[in-house]
Amino acid sequence: MNKVNLKEKLALFSDHWHPRIAGELNGQQVKLAKLQGEFIWHSHEEEDEMFLVLDGELTLEFRDRTVVLKENEFLIVPRGVEHRPVAHNEVSVMLIEPASTVNTGKIKNERTRQGLDYI
Amino acid sequence: MNKVNLKEKLALFSDHWHPRIAGELNGQQVKLAKLQGEFIWHSHEEEDEMFLVLDGELTLEFRDRTVVLKENEFLIVPRGVEHRPVAHNEVSVMLIEPASTVNTGKIKNERTRQGLDYI
Repeated sequence: MNKVNLKEKLALFSDHWHPRIAGELNGQQVKLAKLQGEFIWHSHEEEDEMFLVLDGELTLEFRDRTVVLKENEFLIVPRGVEHRPVAHNEVSVMLIEPASTVNTGKIKNERTRQGLDYI
Repeated sequence: MNKVNLKEKLALFSDHWHPRIAGELNGQQVKLAKLQGEFIWHSHEEEDEMFLVLDGELTLEFRDRTVVLKENEFLIVPRGVEHRPVAHNEVSVMLIEPASTVNTGKIKNERTRQGLDYI
């Protein structure tokens, strides 16, 4: 039961699209990640996913629209909704989603990250 | 599926110890609250509770120690652990906890808030 300082934790890593686990509650994980560039289109069939921007700007593309999240803004992507995160410049985000969530959804490729580390 | 700007939402209310619901995911609610003064000792038997400080400083008292959370710091209080939030000055927080969580835990008194509004 230790406190987590978001900026201190973010300073501990620099690679992109590689979330770290910063906390767990009620079967959900609190993850920190740095994103830059375009991710892949994917969805999570059983899991809602929260994106909170801590630093920078994140574009979330949906099939019918695009939402730009700035610092201190969040959006919850409901389960089943296809989305593609795009970061034109580096962005730091906090993600909240079930422990079972895989970053690429049903798709498994070289960008899939499983067995995430705690930070 | 709209984005939420935390500062804009916080500007919409000023009363203390009265959380508003800003989002829901996987049975959890994302709540925003302003706190000032001392709350009561309580625990949540079945729910872990996350406190993220957005502005100001929050003291979380436990029976065996005290933790001070500053802006951009969070702590997850595990289920069953007695705690007492204290805000010497006004603090704005984001809470994440199951939709079933009552702010005063098992205790029901004049500080109990149920049937929270969305903001």
